[in-house]
Amino acid sequence: MSRFFSEKLKRLTPYTPGEQPKDMKYIKLNTNESPFKPSENAINCAKKATESLNLYPDPECRQLTEKIASLLGVDYDEVLVTNGSDEILNFAFIAFCDAACGAAFPDITYGFYPVFADLNGVEYTKIPLNDDFTVDISKYFNLNKTIFIANPNAPTGIALTQNEIEEILKNNPCNVVVIDEAYVDFGGQSCVPLIKKYDNLLVTQTFSKSRSMAGARLGFGVGSKEIIKDLNTVKYSTNPYNINKMTMAAGIGILEDNDYVLNNCKEIIKNREFTVKELEKLGFVLTNSKTNFVFAKHLKISGKQLYLKLKENGILVRHFDKPKISEYNRITIGTLDEMKILISTTKKILEENE
Amino acid sequence: MSRFFSEKLKRLTPYTPGEQPKDMKYIKLNTNESPFKPSENAINCAKKATESLNLYPDPECRQLTEKIASLLGVDYDEVLVTNGSDEILNFAFIAFCDAACGAAFPDITYGFYPVFADLNGVEYTKIPLNDDFTVDISKYFNLNKTIFIANPNAPTGIALTQNEIEEILKNNPCNVVVIDEAYVDFGGQSCVPLIKKYDNLLVTQTFSKSRSMAGARLGFGVGSKEIIKDLNTVKYSTNPYNINKMTMAAGIGILEDNDYVLNNCKEIIKNREFTVKELEKLGFVLTNSKTNFVFAKHLKISGKQLYLKLKENGILVRHFDKPKISEYNRITIGTLDEMKILISTTKKILEENE
Repeated sequence: MSRFFSEKLKRLTPYTPGEQPKDMKYIKLNTNESPFKPSENAINCAKKATESLNLYPDPECRQLTEKIASLLGVDYDEVLVTNGSDEILNFAFIAFCDAACGAAFPDITYGFYPVFADLNGVEYTKIPLNDDFTVDISKYFNLNKTIFIANPNAPTGIALTQNEIEEILKNNPCNVVVIDEAYVDFGGQSCVPLIKKYDNLLVTQTFSKSRSMAGARLGFGVGSKEIIKDLNTVKYSTNPYNINKMTMAAGIGILEDNDYVLNNCKEIIKNREFTVKELEKLGFVLTNSKTNFVFAKHLKISGKQLYLKLKENGILVRHFDKPKISEYNRITIGTLDEMKILISTTKKILEENE
Repeated sequence: MSRFFSEKLKRLTPYTPGEQPKDMKYIKLNTNESPFKPSENAINCAKKATESLNLYPDPECRQLTEKIASLLGVDYDEVLVTNGSDEILNFAFIAFCDAACGAAFPDITYGFYPVFADLNGVEYTKIPLNDDFTVDISKYFNLNKTIFIANPNAPTGIALTQNEIEEILKNNPCNVVVIDEAYVDFGGQSCVPLIKKYDNLLVTQTFSKSRSMAGARLGFGVGSKEIIKDLNTVKYSTNPYNINKMTMAAGIGILEDNDYVLNNCKEIIKNREFTVKELEKLGFVLTNSKTNFVFAKHLKISGKQLYLKLKENGILVRHFDKPKISEYNRITIGTLDEMKILISTTKKILEENE
């Protein structure tokens, strides 16, 4: 730390991204990436955009924003695209959390929420999940705080229904409720249609998971015109050209191939069902995941030990050394072949462990 | 504005990027872009990176950071790459400006500094330039504030020498001095070598101008290990994957073609000298620009009128409707052909105006 670092940030603990070891080739099931490349059209659009890299991108991202709006059935000015969904989540902490109005989110959820809060000097309350990792929605009623809920939640994978989210919206009329739908395309129910009814709703989504574009950094938010206007004020006060030309073009390209995306999601869901069934056969306890990962523990091997053994065997999964979830591992759903290797390797580890 | 917008942001005025009208094809001399495309190698690197877009980029940007460090003759951990240099400037406002320590910058400079300050709740002092738009360095001594100086300055184009910056550094030992070198490659003197001597120096640069990559969004900061560590703390609390794979690859590619970049800079400087000479012949008064733009006024036509007339004639330049500089236009240096058209069009406008 330098002697110049702001007093208010001195105790800040940054987010830790999933490890990216380079010592050997791993089967990467630790950062919830898609095993499928983006469509050929998306890749070609990105390549074409390299032809005019000397010129600034359109700061309004008009064509991309229009395409997202059209796909979701909302208006152009109800959408804002960002440099990954992390950026719009940070914008939401900046825009909608005052000293007077802190934030609230589950105690087990995306690990970045408390970091955003700390960075922006926002007080927050962590609301405990039930023992089975489900969300008790009544705990979120009339909190007088800005609420952040990942739906489906991470790393648990468990989803709330649209009706349940609607109850939270109804019971927080004076506060913004942010629904982080990073994983919604793998079996969750999107709340995007509710933005027409609730002016306190902001839905965020990403191109990193179902749209196979983690390497391109693209996310977006959907909300009332006023909510989006505020977030645009933050964007134009931070980084007006936040989306580069190649990412913008790839985003447009992948939206033109929505069937390809939907098919990939179906494939992931099928592979998830296979993985759940096989892991259960091996004695694992799993949550009801509606995402592109499963969350699993085994009574005979600790979460940490399994994570380390899998890594030794060339498979990376994500282990969180945190209260309540340290016995679990979060395992990304890859191709069927990858999941078969995961299962056979896990079986071998369990046998050696006996 | 929504009814949820943070009290502290309600009076925030965002930055206004240069206009990007789509009604007709313009000669774009309004946003200081390079008229040259990035090198073929840079473009090919970006294209190649599209092959693995489903995977996250390296959050450490190791290879790119190493290349920048090696080019500049500094260490790996003295460099941080960001999503354009706007991002690192914002990070600097977050990291090094407390309530206890506001910011200071010239009254005429990059229009984003006061916006970053306002966004982050930082008090700031604008220090008047001399009447000829030069910086009086003694006004920056012992301010007890974090200092931001664009060198060369924008939109004036005027540069301080390394010795002058060193005086400012010496006379602010307890505060960070940020030198924004967006335009340094067109005739300015970089202060990067001073980071080894002054732990209070942060130099920022961009790939948008001399490196022809405005469309890719890439910038970086250079400073002591401790300064860079603090900025990394902010990065990992904001957006760990801030640089997408394609931009990262293009950045690596253009650094491998430094002679190409240097030649382009020479060409721009030559075209600038031509433009200055021709505009002076037409009766313009110009500052001594060391950048890829000139800053020019004419006694017989107002800045606004010339801007509007040029636009009517298919040439975009940048006019700032602000005190002290409203008589001027900032004109980006393009190709020699573009500058010839600018000159002949301006001549015609002046003749019609008589």
